[in-house]
Amino acid sequence: MTSFIHVIEFIAVLAGGIYGVLLARRSRMDLVGVFSVAFILAFGGGTLRDLFLDRHPLFWIKHEEFPISVFFLAVISSFIPRFPTWVSKSLCLPDALGLGLFSILGASFALDAGTSWFVASLLGVVTGTFGGVMGEVICNEVPSLFTTAPLYATCAFTGCWIYLPVQGWLSVPDDLAMLIGASVIVLFRLIAVHQDWKLRPHGSTT
Amino acid sequence: MTSFIHVIEFIAVLAGGIYGVLLARRSRMDLVGVFSVAFILAFGGGTLRDLFLDRHPLFWIKHEEFPISVFFLAVISSFIPRFPTWVSKSLCLPDALGLGLFSILGASFALDAGTSWFVASLLGVVTGTFGGVMGEVICNEVPSLFTTAPLYATCAFTGCWIYLPVQGWLSVPDDLAMLIGASVIVLFRLIAVHQDWKLRPHGSTT
Amino acid sequence: MTSFIHVIEFIAVLAGGIYGVLLARRSRMDLVGVFSVAFILAFGGGTLRDLFLDRHPLFWIKHEEFPISVFFLAVISSFIPRFPTWVSKSLCLPDALGLGLFSILGASFALDAGTSWFVASLLGVVTGTFGGVMGEVICNEVPSLFTTAPLYATCAFTGCWIYLPVQGWLSVPDDLAMLIGASVIVLFRLIAVHQDWKLRPHGSTT
Repeated sequence: MTSFIHVIEFIAVLAGGIYGVLLARRSRMDLVGVFSVAFILAFGGGTLRDLFLDRHPLFWIKHEEFPISVFFLAVISSFIPRFPTWVSKSLCLPDALGLGLFSILGASFALDAGTSWFVASLLGVVTGTFGGVMGEVICNEVPSLFTTAPLYATCAFTGCWIYLPVQGWLSVPDDLAMLIGASVIVLFRLIAVHQDWKLRPHGSTT
Repeated sequence: MTSFIHVIEFIAVLAGGIYGVLLARRSRMDLVGVFSVAFILAFGGGTLRDLFLDRHPLFWIKHEEFPISVFFLAVISSFIPRFPTWVSKSLCLPDALGLGLFSILGASFALDAGTSWFVASLLGVVTGTFGGVMGEVICNEVPSLFTTAPLYATCAFTGCWIYLPVQGWLSVPDDLAMLIGASVIVLFRLIAVHQDWKLRPHGSTT
Repeated sequence: MTSFIHVIEFIAVLAGGIYGVLLARRSRMDLVGVFSVAFILAFGGGTLRDLFLDRHPLFWIKHEEFPISVFFLAVISSFIPRFPTWVSKSLCLPDALGLGLFSILGASFALDAGTSWFVASLLGVVTGTFGGVMGEVICNEVPSLFTTAPLYATCAFTGCWIYLPVQGWLSVPDDLAMLIGASVIVLFRLIAVHQDWKLRPHGSTT
């Protein structure tokens, strides 16, 4: 793993962990609950990716500093009795950052394992969205992936399909292509949340 | 993988995908939700089987035509604004077909990996039922595997225990034994749904 | 695997299976539901551990007597029309025993795979708690791991951090260290349930 990928993955883990801490605090969980949710948000998608691609040891077992950092995030947050309201309102920032970085990392690792572009984009979407879906399931909200939420998986899919040709057809270095793809996802997601964009739901069959 | 197994698996994937598309449309999901549910229904059970038996690459990573077909199923369905009522009523057909084929495939792959018959039948039930259980969890219905639903897992278990001795004791070719086992599951399941057969629930302990 | 580990794991599986049978019966499930819940409670955590650590074949595929025993537990329980009330009230006993033994086994297997103590304790908590969390999700209760329940994950974490230094720094044989760690978890959990100990929930951010 290059040090560039390592840094990107660390930022993605921190974004996922911060999003998890804020989500769990909003649901009034105790310290163990906060750490558990932060852990699942930070490592859920990447664990699924590593299992699907048979990458061992798992990335959070190999890079011990990842889970230790998330652990300290949860502990530090427990000393803050009450977050100001603007924190709760900016939940979408770490959410979008984690979505963007994990999606592109998932697609990139899949390419490394020799998959086709289509499968790589699927792995990207799974890696990027799984943590957020789990977080919503645990906190007892309806997972927004499966409802008319603002384009959660659509953003991940679009960004992957910008990253894939940019690194494959234009002779752009892989690191730069990853940054471009991830930026598209983060921006697309933030705008979609802000404008409350939705795909049209289909009519019922019943 | 023989071409017979490949064809059987393809039909099972299509059945799971069609069931997923119809289920998601009934829950009024958008295109991404429809594809996600179809993907989980078509590949959930088989992915668990491949992970449990350490088969890599996963079957939908190896056979790229599987996820591409499910993708087109979801896209095509999005051009149909409203399914007629009889479609929603025939949900049980692709459901039963997917259950039967995936269960027998799971048992067969487990035997290939050298497990005993008992473990093979467990793998068969897990492979056959996991997709359907996940679909019901996502669409926010109570998973019928765990309630007094019409014999979902029981059908899979029974069919596996017909397939296992037929291929092991009678000198029936494996392909034919698989077809026999799968047919038993499909028929058993369709009759159970039609007659609303249930196992007797146990009395409460409280 | 030494015979000591094998015996410990068998007791943990039986405890998980008995807990699952009682939980499912309390929810008035039929025989298949009872077996499914018992199976998930007995093997869920260990399966996740084996997948995360890339141990193959999975422990319940390798030791066929484990799933067969849980199968007979479920069948035998179906001949008992109604459990006396004290059985339902002693649910916490097999729960605590399974939590303690699976947690320490998870930590010990992680150490064998060469992880650090911190990662080993995480694997221990995941292995110990996953079965119980799944059981509560299936039986449609809010998972107590994520709420202010009596210290479910905290007990597992504490016991792992007693086991780790005892086997690492004091020259205590590994078998004895495992028994000490597991006993701490079981006792801690039973006292926490009895006294209804909770961690203080955090204030809401909204």
